Amino acid sequence: MTEHSLWRLSRALHRAINDQHFDDLAAMIDDHIDWAVFGPIDMFPFLGMRHGKTAVLEACRQISQNVRVHRYERESVLLGEDSASAMMRFSLTALDTNRPISLRVAQFAQFRAGRLISMRVVVDTFDLVEQALGRAIHLPKIA
Amino acid sequence: MTEHSLWRLSRALHRAINDQHFDDLAAMIDDHIDWAVFGPIDMFPFLGMRHGKTAVLEACRQISQNVRVHRYERESVLLGEDSASAMMRFSLTALDTNRPISLRVAQFAQFRAGRLISMRVVVDTFDLVEQALGRAIHLPKIA
Repeated sequence: MTEHSLWRLSRALHRAINDQHFDDLAAMIDDHIDWAVFGPIDMFPFLGMRHGKTAVLEACRQISQNVRVHRYERESVLLGEDSASAMMRFSLTALDTNRPISLRVAQFAQFRAGRLISMRVVVDTFDLVEQALGRAIHLPKIA
Repeated sequence: MTEHSLWRLSRALHRAINDQHFDDLAAMIDDHIDWAVFGPIDMFPFLGMRHGKTAVLEACRQISQNVRVHRYERESVLLGEDSASAMMRFSLTALDTNRPISLRVAQFAQFRAGRLISMRVVVDTFDLVEQALGRAIHLPKIA
């Protein structure tokens, strides 16, 4: 049984972000990849939409310069033939401030011929912003 | 071919939130359901963790009193035998302010015998907060 592309992607992303080793990731990203990590790009310029392999690798390079991944846990995984989704929890450090960040992330990936052609990531971004700032943002109660 | 429980859940949630009709939803929620919609509960008390059917129905009742769903679009769906994940985009109105809200949501559901036993939802919460406030929150650039 062939290994699902999700596991190879997961290892490649980990090596890229933590070890600045981008070859494995580059080898499995399609030239015409469509990529989006939804979040506030004013604060985190490496989030947002990217089109094409060069732009995605550059975003991953910027992520690798800003965070270190200590641990991740997959709470749910669904695998399709050429697709995968995962609900994950990451323990990170923000490298500029040395702040620990615990992050909930949902990831949807599509592959073609073993290469990543689409990635959509939703993050609990308000929680991320508060942890990156190191303080709570006051919010009115609306309900 | 039997319809996947996700579609029944989707209709039941829609009827609950938009029409305040909770019977279909109640019928498909397991008594011991584990439910979490990750987000800032200070501002949105109907988000957060809920355990058990009564608590989940009450949270859905509160959601129905706070938003109306105009449109939703499933951008990715993965179906397992007793599980499902969906990346969705919602167009809502916040009922207290009449503000339109466009929301990115990732949902992971697990079923047993046709009933929902686990639900995990990740939302682009910073975007949600800004839209609900009706203004941008100033953020420093960190990268």
